[in-house]
Amino acid sequence: MAPPRGFAYQEFEARTARAQAAMARRGVEGVLLTSEAEIRYFSGFHTLFWQSPTRPWFLYLPASGKPIAIIPEIGAALMRRGWLKDIRTWAAPCPKDDGISLLVDLLAPLAARGATLGLMMGHETHLHMPLADYQRLLEALPGLKLADVTGEVQALRWVKSPAEIAKIAHICGIAGQAFAQADALFHEGQPLDEAFAAFRIACLKLGADDVPYLVGGAAQGGYDDVISPPTAAPLRAGDVLMLDTGATFDGYFCDFDRNFAMARADDASRRAYDVLFAATEAGLDAARPGATCAAVFAAMQRVITRHSPDAGAVGRLGHGLGMQLTEQPSLAGFDTGILQENMVITLEPSLSYGAGRMMVHEENIVVQNGAPRLLSPRAPAALPIIGGRAIIGGRS
Amino acid sequence: MAPPRGFAYQEFEARTARAQAAMARRGVEGVLLTSEAEIRYFSGFHTLFWQSPTRPWFLYLPASGKPIAIIPEIGAALMRRGWLKDIRTWAAPCPKDDGISLLVDLLAPLAARGATLGLMMGHETHLHMPLADYQRLLEALPGLKLADVTGEVQALRWVKSPAEIAKIAHICGIAGQAFAQADALFHEGQPLDEAFAAFRIACLKLGADDVPYLVGGAAQGGYDDVISPPTAAPLRAGDVLMLDTGATFDGYFCDFDRNFAMARADDASRRAYDVLFAATEAGLDAARPGATCAAVFAAMQRVITRHSPDAGAVGRLGHGLGMQLTEQPSLAGFDTGILQENMVITLEPSLSYGAGRMMVHEENIVVQNGAPRLLSPRAPAALPIIGGRAIIGGRS
Repeated sequence: MAPPRGFAYQEFEARTARAQAAMARRGVEGVLLTSEAEIRYFSGFHTLFWQSPTRPWFLYLPASGKPIAIIPEIGAALMRRGWLKDIRTWAAPCPKDDGISLLVDLLAPLAARGATLGLMMGHETHLHMPLADYQRLLEALPGLKLADVTGEVQALRWVKSPAEIAKIAHICGIAGQAFAQADALFHEGQPLDEAFAAFRIACLKLGADDVPYLVGGAAQGGYDDVISPPTAAPLRAGDVLMLDTGATFDGYFCDFDRNFAMARADDASRRAYDVLFAATEAGLDAARPGATCAAVFAAMQRVITRHSPDAGAVGRLGHGLGMQLTEQPSLAGFDTGILQENMVITLEPSLSYGAGRMMVHEENIVVQNGAPRLLSPRAPAALPIIGGRAIIGGRS
Repeated sequence: MAPPRGFAYQEFEARTARAQAAMARRGVEGVLLTSEAEIRYFSGFHTLFWQSPTRPWFLYLPASGKPIAIIPEIGAALMRRGWLKDIRTWAAPCPKDDGISLLVDLLAPLAARGATLGLMMGHETHLHMPLADYQRLLEALPGLKLADVTGEVQALRWVKSPAEIAKIAHICGIAGQAFAQADALFHEGQPLDEAFAAFRIACLKLGADDVPYLVGGAAQGGYDDVISPPTAAPLRAGDVLMLDTGATFDGYFCDFDRNFAMARADDASRRAYDVLFAATEAGLDAARPGATCAAVFAAMQRVITRHSPDAGAVGRLGHGLGMQLTEQPSLAGFDTGILQENMVITLEPSLSYGAGRMMVHEENIVVQNGAPRLLSPRAPAALPIIGGRAIIGGRS
């Protein structure tokens, strides 16, 4: 049963109040947001129209009261259906003034009193407006001080509400059901791009809204790359096949992968699988409220290096998950962030093996007191084989 | 028959040579690119991994020679399969130095001699790296001059090669075939989100790689919004249903919509459809090499205002199409750009009618001498009715 779409207005009120409390602590009078996830987080504005790079969109968080939307007219009808009341629009695209004069009007009082405006400028952020427009905006607002509020805004999204967790759990369940059909979806001789299409279709039939992310690979004795689109090369006995999917429900992602051997598995791939399964177990044991991200990373990395000294170093072994396929924090040595109850994260150990091969495992979990709640159905403990039993059984 | 994936290396060489000629004319010694479409355009680097906002990616166009990739290590294997030779990587994510010291090494010689670096800063662009990193980069390169090369880089992509047109034509054909199945895909009582899923699945079965953009609406006597995700409300007799799709093949988009009446069409919606069909005809007549974008806009707008004086003003009535759902130029009054042979554009007239209703038509064309080549199969001349014939025929 799919959870309801959207959120109660109270959820947006609570998000906004938490942001405003953080703003007050930083001495920031307002925050200007330009990117999809942040604008949706505070406004509920949810549209695929962001695929078009043409028009900028803005949301302003004042020190108190509801956020203010400054958006192209084409989005006004959808925004008015939400909880915001102050919606200012212009007829975009208008290269000479794509919202800038509306922003100047809004921010001039802050500039006049030398107040501080918060912007997201840090790791994992982008300024989603033309750079020249940004410079023009600042020139029109002399006296305005700027502060980087990346940490404050990202921290709000670390911990998920029950409604958010329900959406992520739902899409994880759908992708899990699709992976459970692997024996029917994938077969020897099937071009890899058709295998990917079959998986996408299975997810949609099971209730996914979309499958914006589907990467992976297949190659003899292991794949060597985990971000490529599929080729048309047919699946062959002895291939290790991996699909890593970010499917969505109501704007929330799952993000996990599964590995399969076609017809038969080579020893090195079996062993790599076992090591990563054990590393994931170590991650499940380490992911507790109060643990640092770096500690969970270290727990997984220890298992990998113990069993595979040549496994190589990767940047991170997991990350936050929610409105974006990857979000803060990172399970990485550099991340001193502390896990909290109701954070949704991925455990994503990977290793290199053999001649340029690699393998990745991934599960999605909710941090809670005691063992984490698995949102993705736990992968099988040994590398599953597709079509192998039929061959073992022979044709007699 | 699907066209081949990827491009011959000569195509990337030609793109790079054209960029370098434009750079020489501007006195720009190098161009730093940060966004997906531009990096793919010059390198061939094609991955859905851009769904993750974590890692920045950079491509540097020097004054001569091949582009240089400065990318996270996770992308190295895929990038090495392409035509570039100079691929510099770092173990990302690394918030303290996400490629910045590599960029400083690369650009220090330009800065030392006070040379000019080109960046895209204008309409329809974003700086796809953290703003704080950008500021840090500039501080480390005193003496470096900057130039906005938005116009130069965007202009390269206006005119498509035969291989690009083949990809767009292929995905337009697939979406056209899916729309041709409308009678089988959509029916009264069907929740709108299920109708959308059925359309997505049809596109995938017909060979689309993905359907990253699918918006639309359905409501009695016409819809009021063209960018919303679907609700679960069931389709009812008297609804006008619209789906607007950006499906992809090998990284190239189609972008067109179709309107349908469920069981019966009201007069106002029929009339709106007729006006937009005529406006599209006027656009097809006006879209010739040498015509300005503003003139094609005006030709369509004239038909709309003549028949529907209260149609309202919209920002634009079409746009470029290719690696992005919407790209330069705009069919708008402000756009003085001149159509050239082998530009791929959308004709997208829209109007408001009745009590807050609106309608949009869209076709995809290649500009050529004489009448443009339609890539989308031309929409029916009158509002098509789904399920109407069966009802008219009765149950006897």
